[in-house]
Amino acid sequence: MAAPANATTFSGEVWAELRLADAGDVPHIHALIHQMAEFELLTDLFAATHELLTSTLFPSPPRPPFTSFTALILDLSPSPLPVSADSTIASRRLDLSASPLADPEAAAFASPSGGGRVSAGFVICFPNYSTFLSKPGLYVEDIFVRAPWRRRGLGRMMLSAVACKAAELGMGRVEWCVLDWNKNAIDFYEGMGAEVLPQWRICRLTGAALDKYKGNQEEGSKATE
Amino acid sequence: MAAPANATTFSGEVWAELRLADAGDVPHIHALIHQMAEFELLTDLFAATHELLTSTLFPSPPRPPFTSFTALILDLSPSPLPVSADSTIASRRLDLSASPLADPEAAAFASPSGGGRVSAGFVICFPNYSTFLSKPGLYVEDIFVRAPWRRRGLGRMMLSAVACKAAELGMGRVEWCVLDWNKNAIDFYEGMGAEVLPQWRICRLTGAALDKYKGNQEEGSKATE
Repeated sequence: MAAPANATTFSGEVWAELRLADAGDVPHIHALIHQMAEFELLTDLFAATHELLTSTLFPSPPRPPFTSFTALILDLSPSPLPVSADSTIASRRLDLSASPLADPEAAAFASPSGGGRVSAGFVICFPNYSTFLSKPGLYVEDIFVRAPWRRRGLGRMMLSAVACKAAELGMGRVEWCVLDWNKNAIDFYEGMGAEVLPQWRICRLTGAALDKYKGNQEEGSKATE
Repeated sequence: MAAPANATTFSGEVWAELRLADAGDVPHIHALIHQMAEFELLTDLFAATHELLTSTLFPSPPRPPFTSFTALILDLSPSPLPVSADSTIASRRLDLSASPLADPEAAAFASPSGGGRVSAGFVICFPNYSTFLSKPGLYVEDIFVRAPWRRRGLGRMMLSAVACKAAELGMGRVEWCVLDWNKNAIDFYEGMGAEVLPQWRICRLTGAALDKYKGNQEEGSKATE
């Protein structure tokens, strides 16, 4: 298949880096979340803004990574990465010599890290808690790779890096959600050692149903008189 | 039905308070988590200790409530509560005149708050994050009421109080999990305005499967060479 016009073609070796995001990554994170919403056919739920992402993910003063909401960005570099920085979570080399890769959005997703790097995906995770273990874990809210970069082991690299971090921090679990009809994803996750819990369902109180509780604790509002 | 020997009987009016827990509540929280594990037939997963609960739920310096793992305790008082303290999340009066309540564990669960109060339940919640909303929410990890105090509206009081707090904090969602066969619970949650998401399944990486990632990011460990 010919590369689309305007696509940047990556061939030979490229270097992938999963790194801590900062406020300079917000425009790309926003665009990636929108792509994810399109992929999941859930654009009607998409309400992210640059301002909200900045204030919620990158507050001032900053919080230590993995102690609260933590955003990671996947950058691909056409040249070898320098020695890992503090912000590097994982890195690997990709050999594209057998199958060059055309990225039609490479220019739009030029990484603020420079050096010809392209942002190709992101992870958002945060600590959760298991009372039975009385230990924190990590919950992976999102893991997303742009279409041209899929099926290259980058999703595995990202999830493995989160699992590695959780294990190193002495946490008890890594958890995330999957749609029950997404057999490919389920097989992939099980192959990584995860179990898919068949019986638990998520309950969600949101929108107008949640707003009703504002200033109104229902039974709780019947104060001691 | 006669009250069991040694049970404390509550009758007439009692006052319920949902309050922020502190390290002095750890023994009761531990015992309540164990009761919950028994109720869910999951005692094989129970590994909580006083030490772990103290260090993970009540670190020093303390974190502001609802910004990290947050434990709430439900106390029942035989006499009217004083004016609400900063730690009070919700309070209400219960009228037991029509059906007195025997609590065989009242002595074991005497509240460290004193005043004849008895601890009857707990909530553990923590912030989660919705990328589509780019807003935090609250995830309710556990909500538990000891058997004699059930069916008195206390679970509703506790969940309503968490929803009220989330709404007041400008959060986008409250979420929790339910077992798909627990029709009573599902009906109750739907009655409170929640939707039960049918298609999402929880994936969990834990125990030996998680330990394998320690110091080994799999693909991620294939560093740039």
